[in-house]
Amino acid sequence: MSYFDAASSVPLHPVARQALLAALDEGWADPARLHREGRQAHMLLNAARETAAEAVGCRPDELSFTPSGTRALHTGIAGALAGRRRVSRRLVVSAVEHSAVLHAAESHRAGGGSVTEVAVDRTGRVAAESYARALRAGEQGEGQDEGEGAALACLQSANHEVGTVQPVAEVVEASREAGVPLLVDAAQSLGWRAVPGGWSLLAGSAHKWGGPPGVGLLAVRKGTRFAAPQPTDERESGRAPGFENIPAVVAAAASLRAVRAEADVEAARLHTLVDRIRARVPELVPDTEVVGDPVRRLPHLVTFSCLYVDGEALLHALDRAGFSVSSGSSCTSSTLTPSHVLKAMDVLSEGNVRVSLPPGTEAADVDRFLEVLPEAVRSVRAHLGAPAETGAAVPEGADGDEPARERTVDALGRLCPAPVIELARAIGEVPVGGVVTVLADDEAARLDIPAWCEMRGHDYLGAEGTSYRVRRRG
Amino acid sequence: MSYFDAASSVPLHPVARQALLAALDEGWADPARLHREGRQAHMLLNAARETAAEAVGCRPDELSFTPSGTRALHTGIAGALAGRRRVSRRLVVSAVEHSAVLHAAESHRAGGGSVTEVAVDRTGRVAAESYARALRAGEQGEGQDEGEGAALACLQSANHEVGTVQPVAEVVEASREAGVPLLVDAAQSLGWRAVPGGWSLLAGSAHKWGGPPGVGLLAVRKGTRFAAPQPTDERESGRAPGFENIPAVVAAAASLRAVRAEADVEAARLHTLVDRIRARVPELVPDTEVVGDPVRRLPHLVTFSCLYVDGEALLHALDRAGFSVSSGSSCTSSTLTPSHVLKAMDVLSEGNVRVSLPPGTEAADVDRFLEVLPEAVRSVRAHLGAPAETGAAVPEGADGDEPARERTVDALGRLCPAPVIELARAIGEVPVGGVVTVLADDEAARLDIPAWCEMRGHDYLGAEGTSYRVRRRG
Repeated sequence: MSYFDAASSVPLHPVARQALLAALDEGWADPARLHREGRQAHMLLNAARETAAEAVGCRPDELSFTPSGTRALHTGIAGALAGRRRVSRRLVVSAVEHSAVLHAAESHRAGGGSVTEVAVDRTGRVAAESYARALRAGEQGEGQDEGEGAALACLQSANHEVGTVQPVAEVVEASREAGVPLLVDAAQSLGWRAVPGGWSLLAGSAHKWGGPPGVGLLAVRKGTRFAAPQPTDERESGRAPGFENIPAVVAAAASLRAVRAEADVEAARLHTLVDRIRARVPELVPDTEVVGDPVRRLPHLVTFSCLYVDGEALLHALDRAGFSVSSGSSCTSSTLTPSHVLKAMDVLSEGNVRVSLPPGTEAADVDRFLEVLPEAVRSVRAHLGAPAETGAAVPEGADGDEPARERTVDALGRLCPAPVIELARAIGEVPVGGVVTVLADDEAARLDIPAWCEMRGHDYLGAEGTSYRVRRRG
Repeated sequence: MSYFDAASSVPLHPVARQALLAALDEGWADPARLHREGRQAHMLLNAARETAAEAVGCRPDELSFTPSGTRALHTGIAGALAGRRRVSRRLVVSAVEHSAVLHAAESHRAGGGSVTEVAVDRTGRVAAESYARALRAGEQGEGQDEGEGAALACLQSANHEVGTVQPVAEVVEASREAGVPLLVDAAQSLGWRAVPGGWSLLAGSAHKWGGPPGVGLLAVRKGTRFAAPQPTDERESGRAPGFENIPAVVAAAASLRAVRAEADVEAARLHTLVDRIRARVPELVPDTEVVGDPVRRLPHLVTFSCLYVDGEALLHALDRAGFSVSSGSSCTSSTLTPSHVLKAMDVLSEGNVRVSLPPGTEAADVDRFLEVLPEAVRSVRAHLGAPAETGAAVPEGADGDEPARERTVDALGRLCPAPVIELARAIGEVPVGGVVTVLADDEAARLDIPAWCEMRGHDYLGAEGTSYRVRRRG
């Protein structure tokens, strides 16, 4: 079995396990109590805070432990927005932030605030200049706050679905110039390296670096205006109410230090393995698009999408072959919509596979993955009746008639990848210059039909409601 | 060493430890993922939910795991209030709820809602009739919501500081009659027994019953109107955002089942040990008041207060003697105010000691505690220069004059228990019927001077600002 879903969660690091066991014995008491068990717990908590702060690059008193990375983001965003409420109520985020950030943004909007979403390019990267423009007053905004300066900016250090690294240093600079605090979501990168200084708030999540679940980090630099969401209590600087999870916090800090010690060597090694996947997948599997920035990326993560493939079926085929991966395809989501990241990048979402290698992955595991992938994709395509070959020569009509120049395919009520498969079949039945209209109400079609046109070299004529028009070329 | 602070937290139960270790290996993945590690985590989470729901007495789909008991209360209260926002914005709580409830109430008030606090008697118990009255429209309320029916009622199953059990069954009945959902904070009692049905919401905390920290329970009965505070996500029925802490949840559920299996026998045993403390402490230590209901109480918890004693100094003396206890005295709180529970009960707060026995406590440990307590109290009193004996015969003036009938003692700027010690000294220097005025700005004085009068049999004449007047009797 090979687990290739490190971006979701990784198993507990051996150092974390050891630290957890020790701290379960020594750190179970209430650190607010004056007795020896309480004092001991308090000391362990302080020591963990020192260790984690050093890895984050902040002062210990700037760092609070939260119950998860999600909670760190929710609290960080709400607290920073409340702290600057009188200045502005406009939040700036990139379009590819983690859903925890987007949920917080939604909640801010529901409470009367406004949100400016900065678009990304096809690699999933924001342009620093666009981000800078979004920060300035008078050039962006929506609703009643139109034109005001920003209250808070959020940017991930690297994207969790496609691995693209964001231009954090440039955005730090732009935020400083605009006088807007910047919150960096470092969940995907904190185990690899610290985010260079200049940010105002930073969030992380321990189970992404081999710490236990139940621990997030929220750093708030001194001088950042911050009003923690209520209710709260006296724990964790008033930023994370409830009994501290000291054993888990101790384990999280210990493992962060441990993975950092090996990070550079391991990053270089995994970077090469991912390069191999990036290069080989399009060679081994026809009609496949590797997405994300090929160079400015996380060392361990690569995402690709396969035409005419049901993402869920492909995950199961790979699972049966011994590989655990994840997917941003609509069929793997409870809401049946493609991942918002792929949508923002405007790339193919069907048959989407995210491979994220945990530390210690061997080259042989990757080679084995590359061996089984083609057959897994082929079997799913065969099951779906995908066209074996696309852009085939124009067939003659059965009785020698010219084929019709227009065809309409009804894929209403059918889910991804069916509409694209129907389109691929139909395109062979119109002459070059002919037009296929696809009726499809599956949300993935809006992403996948244009992406298919781009990949197959046909003209995408646009959509009207649930009707998509494509003109055949070559 | 004897740890007598079970009401704060107890060490991990052996069953919890074993379950935690197994689930760290099997349950670290994201349960929302489709691969085998994800499915395995999902199954463990479901199994833990079944086990915990059975112990709570609800359906599994009514139960969400939260990061702590505090978060369960915060979410439960905010969600239930939001769900009934159009009906009423009035929250009813008892005056002795856990601070997490009172913080949520404060936050509700800050957001424009109103809060009715139901008073308790000197044992810390609410009268069911008073609670019922508070639920009814037109008889309670404050501010703009005066007179409206209640949106939500909160009542603890038993008090965390003095052990008094609340009349939950009667309040359930009253809530049902009034059509108001009742949230029961079962944090202190859930390890001992389920709260009988009829409640709408229930909260608990795993580290109180030998589970790991990082796990709270929130049960919301089907049919209860509930709108979870935003932002949230798709996890835990949308009631607890962020990556699930499955290893801890599995351990929490396993230990709840394990402690329940031994609960009746253990409760009976500890009940007897606590009776011994309740009976012996006043005999062994002069000028001591045992508080809380002697019968309707938690099996393992007893609280008493000692005149002329600094609570923090007493904790340290007991700690040196090998006993870990906690205290509601002002000197042990970061805010330097006495516990709100002792305040609501109107009982002595100085020299306060809470003893809460963890399961497995031996009779010999309790006997040893009763052996060391008198000397610990004596040493603290001696260090503070407390009066060895109070209510002494009226001394003659040095030259045979009558003593002055009025004396004023200036204890401004001095902290508990100094004002009471000064009062005790001065009372011997006025004749019977004479009056001592104590100037004291320490907040504990408002509680402790009247309590001292009651204990020593003098007349408390009342306070005006920082000036307290006491008339000597006998």
